[in-house]
Amino acid sequence: MLYLIGLGLADEKDITVKGLEIVKNAARVYLEAYTAILLVDKEKLEAFYGRPVTIADREMVESSSDDILADASNVDVAFLVVGDPFSATTHSDLVLRARELSIPVRSIPNASILTAIGATGLQLYNFGQTVSMVFFLENWKPSSFYDRIKENVSIGLHTLVLLDIKVKEQSLENMARGRKIYEPPRFMTVAQCAVQMLETEEERKEGVYGKDSLAVGVARIGAEDQKIVVGTLEQLAESDLGPPLHSLVLLGRRTHDLEREFLKEFAVGKETFDSVWKRDYEGKQ
Amino acid sequence: MLYLIGLGLADEKDITVKGLEIVKNAARVYLEAYTAILLVDKEKLEAFYGRPVTIADREMVESSSDDILADASNVDVAFLVVGDPFSATTHSDLVLRARELSIPVRSIPNASILTAIGATGLQLYNFGQTVSMVFFLENWKPSSFYDRIKENVSIGLHTLVLLDIKVKEQSLENMARGRKIYEPPRFMTVAQCAVQMLETEEERKEGVYGKDSLAVGVARIGAEDQKIVVGTLEQLAESDLGPPLHSLVLLGRRTHDLEREFLKEFAVGKETFDSVWKRDYEGKQ
Repeated sequence: MLYLIGLGLADEKDITVKGLEIVKNAARVYLEAYTAILLVDKEKLEAFYGRPVTIADREMVESSSDDILADASNVDVAFLVVGDPFSATTHSDLVLRARELSIPVRSIPNASILTAIGATGLQLYNFGQTVSMVFFLENWKPSSFYDRIKENVSIGLHTLVLLDIKVKEQSLENMARGRKIYEPPRFMTVAQCAVQMLETEEERKEGVYGKDSLAVGVARIGAEDQKIVVGTLEQLAESDLGPPLHSLVLLGRRTHDLEREFLKEFAVGKETFDSVWKRDYEGKQ
Repeated sequence: MLYLIGLGLADEKDITVKGLEIVKNAARVYLEAYTAILLVDKEKLEAFYGRPVTIADREMVESSSDDILADASNVDVAFLVVGDPFSATTHSDLVLRARELSIPVRSIPNASILTAIGATGLQLYNFGQTVSMVFFLENWKPSSFYDRIKENVSIGLHTLVLLDIKVKEQSLENMARGRKIYEPPRFMTVAQCAVQMLETEEERKEGVYGKDSLAVGVARIGAEDQKIVVGTLEQLAESDLGPPLHSLVLLGRRTHDLEREFLKEFAVGKETFDSVWKRDYEGKQ
């Protein structure tokens, strides 16, 4: 059996009791480590599980799925995924490959940032489609997120923006020379995201949002030191929410009084929050 | 400290290791049991936790929150919520009340149907806002879900429809006479949901979807006997997915080949699936 097991968001104890039992009894344990990261390292997981863990990078999952699935008709293989197992497309590929090989598959759900974002007090019913934002380069600033946010804004909904992480990336030079030397991991911050959003608005000028638009920055959701900061995009562009992982929510105009009450506690500037809220969000449909 | 602890979706072992440790040490343990239900009963939870559990119904949470919060500045109180703790608004109320009383609050995220729905193979990025559907009565058929679905359909997105549950409801007669006699719990099925959707389309005639529209019915997601059935709304109106809880996804036209491949496995009629997919969904943006 192939088990896809969600690990939740913060540390080794966010696995479910059911998931832990499976890990303890599996023949092999893989950890997917490129679409998200847990806030503890592999050694801590291995000590907690009492089992060796193999890091499965993108290359391994995409090109060596048969190694991962080897003999899984007879033994149990645990494939660990940070968050919920179906948060990333790659895992659908793995399941389809298992199906072709007649290997039974079971998934053990867990928390995902897509719902844990509710800790901000924003109501999950008021969210539209989720978008991703990648690191801009000098000549490559993909802004499809802007079109998606525009669609959500047009019907008054909040948008959760998931921020790029770069793990095990090669520099162009090392890639060209075939050197397997990897850059240190990089994680986009709320401040970087806000800057890129404002840069994109400046470029596109379709008025989807502006420097006065309210947004919520979150960091390390689910961890003891989780942080939530509410401000305008301009304020968030100056914010520092500490270590990864970060995400951002752009507020839609369809809001609820409970959301305002809950959010205000996290506002960097309560007066700005009140005046922008009143002008742009309150009572709008 | 007030701990809001997500229980996940299926049984007692879906709690996280962290959540279980807190429950075992808390002074009092409450179980919220009206926005969703776990697939095991209270006795099984109590045996697993080694602790008594108090069922907190809607009335108790909304009108006696101070009893729940009593002394929580000094002792730990665990408030258990099926799914993720912030899936329902009522829990925001409880947190705001705790804030007023200067009681620290922490939440332990867990799986929610909003992301576990990814087990269908549908990509979470392609979902718009989530809607709820209530049981229609002879003279009360609230169809705001139809407007929300229309918004999602207009931008090509899938819609997750959460289905009504009635727990601890009084009949009008018993309510009028002040008799605390409760009706047996009721859970809307995928078939009932499909019937109500078609009835609403018949009524509103705005062409948001039709009997040929593809939808995905799911039951008991996360449990060993989870069931996924794909068909047209007309086909699903005749389906039987067994015991609760059920949910339904109405497909948006913005789909991915991987979604088709994944879904086809669950189609009640593969030929109908192929022809409707080709006509209404494939390659549409």
